[in-house]
Amino acid sequence: MTVAVKQIVHMKEGTDGTSYANASYLQKQVLSLTKPLKEKALRELYEKEQPTTICIADLGCSSSELNSLSLICELINTIEKHRRELGNGPQEYQVYLNDLPGNDFNNIFRSLGSFEDMIQQQMRDDFGHCFVNGVPGNFYGRLFPSKHLHFVPAGIEGNMRNIYIAKTSPPNVLKAYYNQYGKDFSTFLRCRSKEVVARGMMVLTMIGRRSKELYSKESCNLWDFLAAAFSDMVNEGLIEEEKVNTFNLPLYFPSAAELGFWVEKEGSFTLKKVHVSEVNWKTTMQFKDCTKTFDHNDFAKLIRAVTEHIIVNHFGEHVIEELFHKYTENVKASMAKEKNVFTNVTMVLARKDESTTV
Amino acid sequence: MTVAVKQIVHMKEGTDGTSYANASYLQKQVLSLTKPLKEKALRELYEKEQPTTICIADLGCSSSELNSLSLICELINTIEKHRRELGNGPQEYQVYLNDLPGNDFNNIFRSLGSFEDMIQQQMRDDFGHCFVNGVPGNFYGRLFPSKHLHFVPAGIEGNMRNIYIAKTSPPNVLKAYYNQYGKDFSTFLRCRSKEVVARGMMVLTMIGRRSKELYSKESCNLWDFLAAAFSDMVNEGLIEEEKVNTFNLPLYFPSAAELGFWVEKEGSFTLKKVHVSEVNWKTTMQFKDCTKTFDHNDFAKLIRAVTEHIIVNHFGEHVIEELFHKYTENVKASMAKEKNVFTNVTMVLARKDESTTV
Repeated sequence: MTVAVKQIVHMKEGTDGTSYANASYLQKQVLSLTKPLKEKALRELYEKEQPTTICIADLGCSSSELNSLSLICELINTIEKHRRELGNGPQEYQVYLNDLPGNDFNNIFRSLGSFEDMIQQQMRDDFGHCFVNGVPGNFYGRLFPSKHLHFVPAGIEGNMRNIYIAKTSPPNVLKAYYNQYGKDFSTFLRCRSKEVVARGMMVLTMIGRRSKELYSKESCNLWDFLAAAFSDMVNEGLIEEEKVNTFNLPLYFPSAAELGFWVEKEGSFTLKKVHVSEVNWKTTMQFKDCTKTFDHNDFAKLIRAVTEHIIVNHFGEHVIEELFHKYTENVKASMAKEKNVFTNVTMVLARKDESTTV
Repeated sequence: MTVAVKQIVHMKEGTDGTSYANASYLQKQVLSLTKPLKEKALRELYEKEQPTTICIADLGCSSSELNSLSLICELINTIEKHRRELGNGPQEYQVYLNDLPGNDFNNIFRSLGSFEDMIQQQMRDDFGHCFVNGVPGNFYGRLFPSKHLHFVPAGIEGNMRNIYIAKTSPPNVLKAYYNQYGKDFSTFLRCRSKEVVARGMMVLTMIGRRSKELYSKESCNLWDFLAAAFSDMVNEGLIEEEKVNTFNLPLYFPSAAELGFWVEKEGSFTLKKVHVSEVNWKTTMQFKDCTKTFDHNDFAKLIRAVTEHIIVNHFGEHVIEELFHKYTENVKASMAKEKNVFTNVTMVLARKDESTTV
């Protein structure tokens, strides 16, 4: 189950009344949890390589550019600190913001002014240059020239292609999802292996699971609550059972061991570190001038945003309000009695030298 | 007078009823006139340098992407032919499409599909990769990392900043424009000098003039027809004379000698070739399934599109219809008795080696 958290948390402001702050709360948590890992990797990279221009690619940056550009700003800050410690001269940065061609790049580009302000406020007088490019394309294909990228902080990788398996039992479905995820993830690694320089780093974070079992509560709650809502609607005669039986959400949550296996199998990257962390569905966050608690309603809105088009395609428009009303209630009931979390698997990968690669 | 031909000819389809084909007819002519120069420069560059990835930047590409992407496709075709002649393996291309951040990049990115189709149709099986990036920013500043670009086919450079000189006599105004143009052009060269690799090439085409005189009919007709229209409106009591006396269009047409002088003064590029060509205001062009004659109406629409916001800012909205009615009549009368042309100055520049640069 590859839920594309970037997609979940990166919805556009206002489309469903969810504010941007709401929409990005899960990602903000993930970013802060994985920050030390990224910083360490970057410092190491800079110290060893000291490239004239450091090329950084944020993949699937989405049009909610704020998190993406904040992340970039933090990364640059990390290098700048280290650069000054080492007494080095000004550094150039080439930042690539990637997303699908249909994404709203205009929105990103028009907010580059605020990004430049942010850079100017945070950096010192001896700051070099930071160039920002938009790269339209699917990251399951090639996006960059060979041996070009130094650092790929792929926030959370992996919007799985919409696979659809009819009339299969759950274990078979999950096995098929496992295979498809592995195939897609290996394609992703193969493409990046051409593009990342030797010793270049990727820090990938996926929603995954701790359990060895393909089907575990930690990774399937989200879907179980939706399945329960569907089941209620069948009982109430609002949806045909047959329709539900032929529907699957194309989601898979890999375990750290599975991810490690695929990395090794693909062969271009060395797995330097794996880190498993948790993000609570319900959380309280501190903003500039207020504190906001994100609850079952906020969570349900996020899940609705990422699943709505798949559900509407299969069941039609008319089921959606009632379905998510029930879903929200299920999430609320669960949150009242237990802690629900996303498990994140973060991997630090270093590109092997060409000579050591098979 | 730096009329930004890219801006003139690159207006968006439909904003004033001018079709895309209409809007780009001048640029199409310029592109075809300067094609051999670009091809020669590219072949030379490829043969000497054979970079792993050829980095090409189209500056001020505008959202009317078709000409820009067609040009890129032609350039790639040129290299591909030469590559096969030399028996070399697949080549990678990194293409940068630059324009101001407010430009409609979404439109460009969404038509990349057709560009890829075009590439696939024209290239052979052993084609490498072509990566297209959007680069939002002003080309009077830095846009790319140091020593990065191999080829800059800056279609027609130079939208001059809106300078405004009140109550000065024409010779002084022109001298001020000359100075401002020189300053801007030198800034442009200085920025590119950091970004273009040693022996990298730029092919710049500007609207210019043949005459040595700052004020010559060939370069000022366009403005004279507008001045005559203003004058008529003053006589008819539709505009105050004072308003016209304090208005100047920020346009300057440099001569080849002036451009050469500025290139030498800046010092980073060697002027390999200068070519002066002409583009007729009135022309007949052959399209896929039709022939179209572009006349005084089409020309007046182009000039209106590029000057309208400056005129409206100074005189208000109410003057514009009548002004351009008169302007169109003036252009029509002139076209009936004489040939009106834009003079284009094309320069092929090669980046000097660092060691030979002051």
